[in-house]
Amino acid sequence: MKGISKSVFDELSAIVGGAHVQIDETTIDENSRDIGPWRTRGVAVVSPATTDEVASILRLANREKLPVWTFSGGWNWGYGAAMGLRDGALILLLRRMNRIVEVNRELAYAVIEPGVTQAQLRAHLDAEQTGLWTDCTDSTPKGSVIGNALEHGVGYTPLCDHFGALCGIEAVLADGTVIRSGGGNEASKTWHTHRWGTGASIEGLFGQSNLGVVTKAGIWLMPKPEAHGLFLLEFADEARLPAIIDTIRELTLQGMLRANIHTVNDVLFAAILGPYPDDLLRAGQTFLGDAERATLRERYNIAPLSLTGGLYGTRTQVAEQRRQLKERLAPHGKLTFVSERLASLLPPIIDTWERLTPGSAPDRALRKATGASPAKLRATSRVFDLLRGVPSETVLGFAYFKARKPRPTVDLDPARDGAGMIWAPCMLPLRGQDMRAVIDLARPLFRAHGLDYTNTFISINARTTMSLMPIFYRPDDGDEVKRALDLQRALFEACQRAGYPQYRTGHSLHEVIFDDAPGYHEALRAIKRALDPNGILAPGRYGG
Amino acid sequence: MKGISKSVFDELSAIVGGAHVQIDETTIDENSRDIGPWRTRGVAVVSPATTDEVASILRLANREKLPVWTFSGGWNWGYGAAMGLRDGALILLLRRMNRIVEVNRELAYAVIEPGVTQAQLRAHLDAEQTGLWTDCTDSTPKGSVIGNALEHGVGYTPLCDHFGALCGIEAVLADGTVIRSGGGNEASKTWHTHRWGTGASIEGLFGQSNLGVVTKAGIWLMPKPEAHGLFLLEFADEARLPAIIDTIRELTLQGMLRANIHTVNDVLFAAILGPYPDDLLRAGQTFLGDAERATLRERYNIAPLSLTGGLYGTRTQVAEQRRQLKERLAPHGKLTFVSERLASLLPPIIDTWERLTPGSAPDRALRKATGASPAKLRATSRVFDLLRGVPSETVLGFAYFKARKPRPTVDLDPARDGAGMIWAPCMLPLRGQDMRAVIDLARPLFRAHGLDYTNTFISINARTTMSLMPIFYRPDDGDEVKRALDLQRALFEACQRAGYPQYRTGHSLHEVIFDDAPGYHEALRAIKRALDPNGILAPGRYGG
Repeated sequence: MKGISKSVFDELSAIVGGAHVQIDETTIDENSRDIGPWRTRGVAVVSPATTDEVASILRLANREKLPVWTFSGGWNWGYGAAMGLRDGALILLLRRMNRIVEVNRELAYAVIEPGVTQAQLRAHLDAEQTGLWTDCTDSTPKGSVIGNALEHGVGYTPLCDHFGALCGIEAVLADGTVIRSGGGNEASKTWHTHRWGTGASIEGLFGQSNLGVVTKAGIWLMPKPEAHGLFLLEFADEARLPAIIDTIRELTLQGMLRANIHTVNDVLFAAILGPYPDDLLRAGQTFLGDAERATLRERYNIAPLSLTGGLYGTRTQVAEQRRQLKERLAPHGKLTFVSERLASLLPPIIDTWERLTPGSAPDRALRKATGASPAKLRATSRVFDLLRGVPSETVLGFAYFKARKPRPTVDLDPARDGAGMIWAPCMLPLRGQDMRAVIDLARPLFRAHGLDYTNTFISINARTTMSLMPIFYRPDDGDEVKRALDLQRALFEACQRAGYPQYRTGHSLHEVIFDDAPGYHEALRAIKRALDPNGILAPGRYGG
Repeated sequence: MKGISKSVFDELSAIVGGAHVQIDETTIDENSRDIGPWRTRGVAVVSPATTDEVASILRLANREKLPVWTFSGGWNWGYGAAMGLRDGALILLLRRMNRIVEVNRELAYAVIEPGVTQAQLRAHLDAEQTGLWTDCTDSTPKGSVIGNALEHGVGYTPLCDHFGALCGIEAVLADGTVIRSGGGNEASKTWHTHRWGTGASIEGLFGQSNLGVVTKAGIWLMPKPEAHGLFLLEFADEARLPAIIDTIRELTLQGMLRANIHTVNDVLFAAILGPYPDDLLRAGQTFLGDAERATLRERYNIAPLSLTGGLYGTRTQVAEQRRQLKERLAPHGKLTFVSERLASLLPPIIDTWERLTPGSAPDRALRKATGASPAKLRATSRVFDLLRGVPSETVLGFAYFKARKPRPTVDLDPARDGAGMIWAPCMLPLRGQDMRAVIDLARPLFRAHGLDYTNTFISINARTTMSLMPIFYRPDDGDEVKRALDLQRALFEACQRAGYPQYRTGHSLHEVIFDDAPGYHEALRAIKRALDPNGILAPGRYGG
């Protein structure tokens, strides 16, 4: 029982029950890995079932000055998964706290615990015939709704800003005090309807931080719209991107578009659809050249750039959205709309198509008619689902692009399966000139490090997008691992210099993330000292 | 020079210039009054011009342990205006910091200092032909945009949640440290586009609090829509209110309505239109009975309940909004739409009408044709302006309902003019059953205290509304003043018990506001001690 004393183990066992304090190698291993090349080992994994148990654990840890790293689901791949920043932490895993406490149909919110997963919440809303949709990410369906929201995660629907959709949280501070945001009393009926509440709003403190353990939260939902759909714009000329994006922003600010926009480049789209095309790499190449990318695009029938988003509203509103998009985007590329009816036809078409011989006459005819490939059409179908809040593992598959093991068909876990991927995510204004600048800054760095430039722009709100740049590497190639890490750092530094801050961060950057924001950082540290004087909660996380 | 030492006076003068440290009786008096029956006297009024000057003042105050109360504009009538909670404070007035630092047309935001007024920002946006609208409140055009946003103020357009429209703030802490929210560096291009930023979001801390002095902020704007309009639903049967409100909420959650809704009862509408109808009070009455309210309604041609909101979008979108509202609201009362074209015709019609003899044939014909009176039509015209972000003094006039002096036609200042009004504002879900409950809770208390029940429901977001209940009293009637104060406290207590928290608060309630939220309150006080160990910033404000 190295790393945790017998007495602490016994005390933890008394709090949560012996079965829920795990110190076996297998469990420790499972919580000591990420997609990236980082490994830290915790001393135990403790899984409470209630807020009271969390409070008792924190009181104990505070007394013992034992560092505690909390994970709602622990599937925060690429940003630390379920590992502490350093060895020796108590891993506090909240998966057992998975109650859906309330669904308020009239006010369109749910109150949930941090162990509630994306799939679970959606299934519950459907089974209870609430007529409500939840947003979801394109990561694992078993991901925690609250965990993702606290990390400022982003989805697909009008509720895509997950931190913005949180409303009313219960959190346990380092000393075991249970607090509620909003300033209201326990009878308050607006705790989950009004974010700012009465007095200073403290909710913001609990996102991307280490100031408390969130044990319950309200999350806003949306009524299923009368009509909804997907639009896809495919285009070859990158020079058109600024004009397209400026148009998207204008339509969003006008209230015409209500959801966010995903723009993927060819390599990232290909990564979603299948494994790395090793066969295309010529001798001495470590990344695909222009010609090889063209071949790759041809295989999947994809464009250099693909932009997609959702339409929501009454039938009249959605028709108006289509009209506006057609008028303003169609000149730039190939614009496709997928209605609910068309989407319902896709799965049987795809199933049939996948049984055809590639290159056969019917396959060629379908490629021509759909402008797609079976894999691309299946991904489009799954994106349609994401646009109505139905999670799936399809997009997550890209983490296996250069993985040791082939991607499974179900139960994806890229940390377990030895994927090689780290994130370089910055934020920028949703504006053509900034997208141009980020591409011009990032692509040469990818190339200089001998790696494929992969990128998706995902809008966060009407004025902001992220540039989420996954860096894929072969985990068994020490040189490539080093180049990937160097590239991540180089992108971080170049983005900071250019005024494009990090969207979210992980192991390698927590310590430097606020080096150039000293006033903010010092204020944050003062708050940290006030709320967690012994510094037991996730020490070092986001500079705290 | 009582209350402030010569050396402190000299130091302040050295920081801001002698002309900007005022200790004369007139200035002190002007900053020692509110609409309500509270008076506290500051020791000096200091008016810095820059963030550096603010920082120097706070360093001095911190050293001297001198309490500082900060006011952006100082027109926060009914919630303290420009007074400290107790005598002896240094009044830090930011009106001279009135630079519009930037207007970003593409990203639709402005960066402004706290002295920038609603009228100034709007005039600037118009003069520069930006094509952008700002939201505004229905209080004074000289009110501070930032000050109102920090107080969680609410306006009329899709950007009506003013605190939610703030993005990216600069603040000075008690020790003079200047910090920026968002965690980014000085080059950050998303400071004013992405609220949560990187790491813990601290912006929420600076609303309704006393943790820092906000010296600059981004505020989101909206592009002028292709079409816009006003709708007004007038109805007599209060029993219909729940169904109407549930419909409004559904339409808002669906994204059909994008702005907030104001619902006023007859007495409050009459207060906007003119002085208290003393002639209607029978002997012994201290408030209007049902019959007198009916007479009052007849005078102004107003309904027992009037609900109004805005329509925004493309012409097609606005037509769809009208279609939906007509289908779903018209069965409940008299539904009127005012288009931009109709609104442009109103001022000359009103001007003509006001010159007619009341009761004359043309006056009666116009009353019948418009369903209004000249005063009501003028107010409607001004509300149309508010719905496009143009501030005016019209609605503010209601503060003079029982004032000592008649309301001026311009330059309203109800604190200066001896108005008698205090607020009782609670928050509730935007749901029929809660509106019913709040009315049933509040009206008997007004009557038991011998005062007129006045109320407006103003929605804050798609799920929340406030019930803003002005308590009007005659400032020269000591008994009525006492009944007004007793009523305010009774409403506060009853609302808290029923789970309807305070929307905002003023002098009489700062000390008790968080009595029943001990966990939250203790966390807030810990943060206060961390950021302001000497407690110099607005001690006691919002329980801090």
